[in-house]
Amino acid sequence: MANRTVQPTSPESHRARPEGAAPDPAAVFDWVDRRAELRARAGLTRRPRPRPAVDPLLDLASNDYLGLVRHPRVVRAAADAALRWGAGATGSRLVTGTTELHTELEEELAAFCGAEAALVFSSGYAANLAALTALTGPGTLIVADAYNHASLIDGCRLSRAEVAPVGHRDPDAVRAALAGRDGGRALVVTDSVFSVDGDAAPLAELAGACRAHGAALLVDDAHGLGVVGDGGAGALAAAGLAGSPDVVATVTLSKSLGSQGGAVLGPRRVVRHLVETARTFIFDTGLAPASVGAALGALRLLREEPERAARAREVARRLSAGLTAAGLEASVPDAAVVSVRAPSPEAAVAWARACREAGVAVGCFRPPSVPDRFSRLRLTARGDLTDARIEQAVAVVARCAPRADAPHPVAGN
Amino acid sequence: MANRTVQPTSPESHRARPEGAAPDPAAVFDWVDRRAELRARAGLTRRPRPRPAVDPLLDLASNDYLGLVRHPRVVRAAADAALRWGAGATGSRLVTGTTELHTELEEELAAFCGAEAALVFSSGYAANLAALTALTGPGTLIVADAYNHASLIDGCRLSRAEVAPVGHRDPDAVRAALAGRDGGRALVVTDSVFSVDGDAAPLAELAGACRAHGAALLVDDAHGLGVVGDGGAGALAAAGLAGSPDVVATVTLSKSLGSQGGAVLGPRRVVRHLVETARTFIFDTGLAPASVGAALGALRLLREEPERAARAREVARRLSAGLTAAGLEASVPDAAVVSVRAPSPEAAVAWARACREAGVAVGCFRPPSVPDRFSRLRLTARGDLTDARIEQAVAVVARCAPRADAPHPVAGN
Repeated sequence: MANRTVQPTSPESHRARPEGAAPDPAAVFDWVDRRAELRARAGLTRRPRPRPAVDPLLDLASNDYLGLVRHPRVVRAAADAALRWGAGATGSRLVTGTTELHTELEEELAAFCGAEAALVFSSGYAANLAALTALTGPGTLIVADAYNHASLIDGCRLSRAEVAPVGHRDPDAVRAALAGRDGGRALVVTDSVFSVDGDAAPLAELAGACRAHGAALLVDDAHGLGVVGDGGAGALAAAGLAGSPDVVATVTLSKSLGSQGGAVLGPRRVVRHLVETARTFIFDTGLAPASVGAALGALRLLREEPERAARAREVARRLSAGLTAAGLEASVPDAAVVSVRAPSPEAAVAWARACREAGVAVGCFRPPSVPDRFSRLRLTARGDLTDARIEQAVAVVARCAPRADAPHPVAGN
Repeated sequence: MANRTVQPTSPESHRARPEGAAPDPAAVFDWVDRRAELRARAGLTRRPRPRPAVDPLLDLASNDYLGLVRHPRVVRAAADAALRWGAGATGSRLVTGTTELHTELEEELAAFCGAEAALVFSSGYAANLAALTALTGPGTLIVADAYNHASLIDGCRLSRAEVAPVGHRDPDAVRAALAGRDGGRALVVTDSVFSVDGDAAPLAELAGACRAHGAALLVDDAHGLGVVGDGGAGALAAAGLAGSPDVVATVTLSKSLGSQGGAVLGPRRVVRHLVETARTFIFDTGLAPASVGAALGALRLLREEPERAARAREVARRLSAGLTAAGLEASVPDAAVVSVRAPSPEAAVAWARACREAGVAVGCFRPPSVPDRFSRLRLTARGDLTDARIEQAVAVVARCAPRADAPHPVAGN
């Protein structure tokens, strides 16, 4: 979603000298300090904040949409898989890195989402790079929503296909881009639920546009799986597109399923094509058994307790309604993400800090990690939040984030 | 290392039709079947081969160089981490995906390798993409060994830097490329131990070339960590380059450490730069606690039992010597990988199958997963192999792979 930082040439950093002359090896990275200073001046310094094992904060910042990361059955499944299958996959998937547990997860995940087949990767990032590079290439066209996730943008770049960025959630622009191509294959690519604001893509309409123009559709359902659709079967199922022969989905195992990894879902022939051609499948170590086991455990739990998905959406709607009633500019959620627009990066940081001090962890998204120039808080609605916790969250955020004076409505809502 | 499959335009697959006309959605992926048929005809069809939990085969195919994947302490560390920290990291590293366990691993890994700082990723692939895209860009030059791993090649492509490929293990060519540039930053990138043949890069000489020409050096030590250098401290330590202010390393946690994930190691300012600018760090979910815990467990074990690294190299030398004595064209190992040249892809497949039927799993590498046009068997020397197992392995491979008649010596040896 963000622009990659461009590294302009710094001729002064290139000091050719004859071999044997006293070198100043550290100078080679002096430019890094200059960049850091620029970011510091812009208030954009960022550092990881290590969490303790028992975190007293109320978590509204993670992507643990169903509250399964610490569910006893899920962590037990992770631990059991490590004990039974080993701590790692031992190699790449086509050599030694595929266990029967991987196959089990792929079959159950495909069945859960209504797809013919699934292929598991070590991350959703890798799954997106795989789908884009294996399904497009020089001479093909990719039509991409301007707000797509960073991994989709990187996949477009890696593919060497022609990329036509189109406006956010704009099927007419997609149709125009497809109609304007001069032959050749085309792929339309979009998030199902956009990660920053939680708004949904018009999937049925996009699929119609693709069919009318002989294009394929690739949907990143990272924020839809487990939250959207009957029992959390995902955005394709919700749009009546599950099992379509011209639609491919990617998902993550690290959000609603509380684990790590990603997957590509689609027609069996497409999955086989990825097995044999996708570089991030062929040249990456297979997902660790513990993560495979955890994802399987979470998937089975969700099958038994399908109401978890609807509850996550309900929590999101209540968070949004509460924050809006308090005068904040909150997005209307299509899934489990609610964003609150802030007037500046500094305000977003100050609000998030105040929330944290009041016991509530919220996400703080600033440029360049946003698709536009607006900073915001990002709240995730976990399906396991009690009503009392929702009220606490609304009260704290409303107290810590004074009424916003952002000039525009939240994008896409 | 392999060429990415190019997807030529197939104009016949583009059938524009008015919206509402009867679509033939499946036709959109017919080209995938045609590609599969071409691969099948070339004998290049590949499918994952799911392993059972208890595999009767003698494993010479994985990257489990120290035999730690199923070590009781390592799997226990994985299981304990899942139970204590949860099944997943819950979010991206800069939001909620950094636990104190991640920090602990980063500190111990940096200390182990003699680097100032380390940053953990969900895969070595992601670590390589991060290092290359964050440290180069338009206007900078990357000088890259032609046999570099696929993830380094993809990182070069993603970076949009100018890329100068140079011959395999050729410091003179590197010097020429650096001297020929017209100002601007430059980065030399190489594997330390090349994955297919297991041969080593001339790191000290490359570092000298970089210093003479004001360039930085990036070394992928995926196959060196845990195997090369005193106690497995890695190829930079072995070359006297650990802690250099102008050298950055990437490693995997999925090979000698028996887990999953990767890391970038280098000067603290470089690591901070990656935290704030590397897209595969910022936009990826953090590594799962079980994998963090397993890597930490393996690292601590290796610190206590540093002889494990030397034993893996010793096993490799004995495998190579035994196979050479049997008349095979085996590489002389610089680390724990031994390759055996085969006269054709079909022969390599037949040899690998025969080995498997005789109880020994070996890797079978064919185009496009090799840096040249030669197919080979790839054997990995696990440090936990007994002398009897080594003899068994040599006997089986020698029986299953008749004397090779490949026309050239193994590249780089």
